[in-house]
Amino acid sequence: MQAIAYPKTWWEQIPAATESVELFSPNSPLLLESRETLAPVTVAYETYGTLNTEGTNALLVCHALTGSAHAAGLSRDCQTGWWDGIIGEGKALDTSKYFVICSNFLGSCYGTTGPSSINPATGKAYRTDFPKVSVRDMVRVQYELIHYLGVQKLAAVIGGSLGGMQVLEWALMYPDFVDAIIPIATSARHSAWCIGWGEIERLAILNDPAWNNGAYTEQPYNGLALARMIAMISYRSKNSYEDRFGQKKHSNSNLPFSHGGSRDNFFEMQSYLHHQGKKLVDRFDAATYIYVTRAMDSHDVTRNRGTLETVLGGIKARALCIGVASDVLYPAEEQKGIAALIPDAEYAEIASVHGHDAFLIEYDQLNRIVGDFLK
Amino acid sequence: MQAIAYPKTWWEQIPAATESVELFSPNSPLLLESRETLAPVTVAYETYGTLNTEGTNALLVCHALTGSAHAAGLSRDCQTGWWDGIIGEGKALDTSKYFVICSNFLGSCYGTTGPSSINPATGKAYRTDFPKVSVRDMVRVQYELIHYLGVQKLAAVIGGSLGGMQVLEWALMYPDFVDAIIPIATSARHSAWCIGWGEIERLAILNDPAWNNGAYTEQPYNGLALARMIAMISYRSKNSYEDRFGQKKHSNSNLPFSHGGSRDNFFEMQSYLHHQGKKLVDRFDAATYIYVTRAMDSHDVTRNRGTLETVLGGIKARALCIGVASDVLYPAEEQKGIAALIPDAEYAEIASVHGHDAFLIEYDQLNRIVGDFLK
Repeated sequence: MQAIAYPKTWWEQIPAATESVELFSPNSPLLLESRETLAPVTVAYETYGTLNTEGTNALLVCHALTGSAHAAGLSRDCQTGWWDGIIGEGKALDTSKYFVICSNFLGSCYGTTGPSSINPATGKAYRTDFPKVSVRDMVRVQYELIHYLGVQKLAAVIGGSLGGMQVLEWALMYPDFVDAIIPIATSARHSAWCIGWGEIERLAILNDPAWNNGAYTEQPYNGLALARMIAMISYRSKNSYEDRFGQKKHSNSNLPFSHGGSRDNFFEMQSYLHHQGKKLVDRFDAATYIYVTRAMDSHDVTRNRGTLETVLGGIKARALCIGVASDVLYPAEEQKGIAALIPDAEYAEIASVHGHDAFLIEYDQLNRIVGDFLK
Repeated sequence: MQAIAYPKTWWEQIPAATESVELFSPNSPLLLESRETLAPVTVAYETYGTLNTEGTNALLVCHALTGSAHAAGLSRDCQTGWWDGIIGEGKALDTSKYFVICSNFLGSCYGTTGPSSINPATGKAYRTDFPKVSVRDMVRVQYELIHYLGVQKLAAVIGGSLGGMQVLEWALMYPDFVDAIIPIATSARHSAWCIGWGEIERLAILNDPAWNNGAYTEQPYNGLALARMIAMISYRSKNSYEDRFGQKKHSNSNLPFSHGGSRDNFFEMQSYLHHQGKKLVDRFDAATYIYVTRAMDSHDVTRNRGTLETVLGGIKARALCIGVASDVLYPAEEQKGIAALIPDAEYAEIASVHGHDAFLIEYDQLNRIVGDFLK
């Protein structure tokens, strides 16, 4: 007989609180890849578990496009962390053994300095005055945070999608600081396909008059919501949506369409997308979306370093590359290609219909695959 | 030694001219699935080859979302037809044997009555006052045209994408009139995935203030262009774009991005999409885009008929279902599924990296596959 898995109540979850620290100073500012400087930089982060005295049991979790530092546990406003399924006692990222760190990356809008932060020079939000940031800049800031936290070496760096891009950069920028890397559903160099997706999502925002060249007072609803709706198509798979919605309608009409107007939602699939769009507008920022997708587009581990073969071939860390069978954005083939070029790498695949998002859904498989690798 | 294939000059191509005819009358109007009526209906069409005296050697070509009646030959304004690669003497749709017909479907903007036509009641373009049309309505109008042209029986109906939807409806609506059908890269019932794509493309238009609820005087450029850019992502494949563009930039910068503003195109992939968007705005109509994608979303051969098994299982025509290995929009699996349910069906696959668009590109394979089937 199987135990019934009741939903967890608040007292069963790790209490989580996002903390923040100010790093870099005007005398020693952050030098960005764009050659601009930034100081100070506030970094929001959460940690779970305890750092050992040697400072060597830390795991760094890198989040994706719209993620935050709140990766695990229950926050004060009762939100469960986005990767709570694999972080905690007895889970793959076992907090009884590891000191797990997740920080909001540079350029995001969840507490770390980014386009929605106040520009000290003007007293207003930076918006489009914020300097462009790259994945390497994000990792540079994480490195500073890790030092601040007393970490001497990272046992592993793990993340999916944009998180995985940071993971690869960690192995390349700080090779002596990382024992193992776990890039999931990501790329070594952003593909033309993904640049295309980024472009249409950005345009959805830029085309919205409420965007107002970044001088908006409220989020440009239509644009940011459409950007998310576009992205949602790419995050799942045809079969995932077919299983859930098919051609289901909101009414039992035997007509081919409703008599509604242009914005009428006749099919459940339409309403689902609109709901997802609204949810993002309630929690994200349009300028941040522009900046972070540009950072992703610019992602290229070979930039100023060499060929893909020599660059990935120079990675010293042990690697576990994870792909998702149904991922259309960063296909399994691309993950196999990364694993094939890293000397000490293995490849594992998540069997799932849920496409790219599977790394945020398939916890049983992730716990097994990642848990085995970290043992 | 291989013969060099020079591009054809104008005198080597079939001269093509789009003709038009007025069908239906106020006394005997077209009854639409929406239960509205329409009369008269102008239908634009082209024909190639000669109808035999029995009226039995006709092939009907059905076009896709933004296509037109100009399927083959060279028009007076020097445009080669969109399927010229397989229509003509010695090609799969051999004009020395067959009378090939292609008509612009109901609701389009290339000569057949649609949202951009003048509403006789107001003297202005219909735009959003046009009644909603379905794939079945398109086929109903084609049936009327075929009669007008003296055709007694169609030797075959062929088309890809939305064209393939019409092909399937032909076999179901007029079973005694069709000997063979060739649906390519299409669906029997529009998937949730494709409904999702349609929705984000429409929203790109509806979000553009220049759309003005359909009361636009010039095409809503930003919206219609973005709709096309979104669609272009779905029409090709990741590998197709990767082979062509990868992460190629317009300059040899070793910086991760340009110093350009929000709308800066740093990567060739971005410029490609913008170019495709512009090209569609120059030749298409926004309201038509809304109407035709809605017709596609409503496509369901089972509507008011039965189950998918009984409906496709009742098709009497001989069928050749063609899939494209890399199609992400209407995957090869979906075509195999259609072929599996039609009693007298065979399945053939186009090997191509070009995704859904392969049916407009891979002429050698199409000529062989379709030519063999029609022999």
